[in-house]
Amino acid sequence: MSEFIAPLEIMIEAFRRLPGVGRKSAERMAFGVLDMTPEETERFTEAILCAKRTIRPCRICGNITAAEVCPICSDAGRNKKLICVVEDSKAVISFEKIKEYGGVYHVLGGVISPRSGKGPSDLNLSTLPERITESGAEEVMIATNATVEGETTAMYVSRLIKPTGVKITRLAYGIPVGADIEYADKLTLIRAIEGRREF
Amino acid sequence: MSEFIAPLEIMIEAFRRLPGVGRKSAERMAFGVLDMTPEETERFTEAILCAKRTIRPCRICGNITAAEVCPICSDAGRNKKLICVVEDSKAVISFEKIKEYGGVYHVLGGVISPRSGKGPSDLNLSTLPERITESGAEEVMIATNATVEGETTAMYVSRLIKPTGVKITRLAYGIPVGADIEYADKLTLIRAIEGRREF
Repeated sequence: MSEFIAPLEIMIEAFRRLPGVGRKSAERMAFGVLDMTPEETERFTEAILCAKRTIRPCRICGNITAAEVCPICSDAGRNKKLICVVEDSKAVISFEKIKEYGGVYHVLGGVISPRSGKGPSDLNLSTLPERITESGAEEVMIATNATVEGETTAMYVSRLIKPTGVKITRLAYGIPVGADIEYADKLTLIRAIEGRREF
Repeated sequence: MSEFIAPLEIMIEAFRRLPGVGRKSAERMAFGVLDMTPEETERFTEAILCAKRTIRPCRICGNITAAEVCPICSDAGRNKKLICVVEDSKAVISFEKIKEYGGVYHVLGGVISPRSGKGPSDLNLSTLPERITESGAEEVMIATNATVEGETTAMYVSRLIKPTGVKITRLAYGIPVGADIEYADKLTLIRAIEGRREF
């Protein structure tokens, strides 16, 4: 039983459905809305609806964009022969933040996950082999997350694009920079040993 | 400079304006919206707009309600001779949660705060003396927060209603000084009610 009146409870539950929002935060946000003027509320929901209306996947790479082709794909200065395969647009942002990567991306929009009923056909994969061939790509760097599902997806992508003959690489696994070996988990340490390089 | 495209950035900043939401949380929420179906987004914003449209202050006590009179004021089982003056509806919810208070409320909708330019005329105060007289109230328990502004407001309310001759009490200092009633634990709140003293 909720101690809140119905429309407030519905609003709280709506906020709660957002990622990383617990009950207490959702209550605080809902009361925040009640403290807004009607105009502020209108602007708030309009910002959400407008983003939802205008943001769509880039025709080439699947990254979020407000145009048909995203700013990265339409940037003549980017190396189109190097394609980084990532799970989602958040990963693109992480790569862009470091300002060290000059290639382009291919955003899958998820991972293969039997648990959540997601198969290869649910991912942005069908156009990838053709894209590689047409662009004359020289390397595809697979940068899915270091999770079981990320690994499974990486394996699948790798097998799918092998026939194109492109060089396929995977992000290195190892000890995070600045971290203590003492606190590295077993699997990370095994991978770090496997991936060791000559000085 | 933002690494996000404009409509996404606008949505992130909209979320960030909610209480308790930092930049990182706002980004996570915005991506959560992008992961929704258009129908889910519609339902989400509609829940907010609907709450905003239907929720208004109770004609009698000023508490939030979806009707003209709130469920507490229209509950025949509540003691109308005991009025608890609180800053906002969040405080009402805190009192209701402990299920120990059987009186009614008077929600001020804020506190006197020169810092944020709020004076007595900005609060739901004008009807209080009349309400006390008309309802034949026997006691008004002032339960503003234990902050400087809450104290100032309590003093003001006390002076305002003194001419009615009603017994005026103040929550006991069971509430930790400087803290919000919203976050008080059940026992602290019960002790504070039991230990209330006359002004």
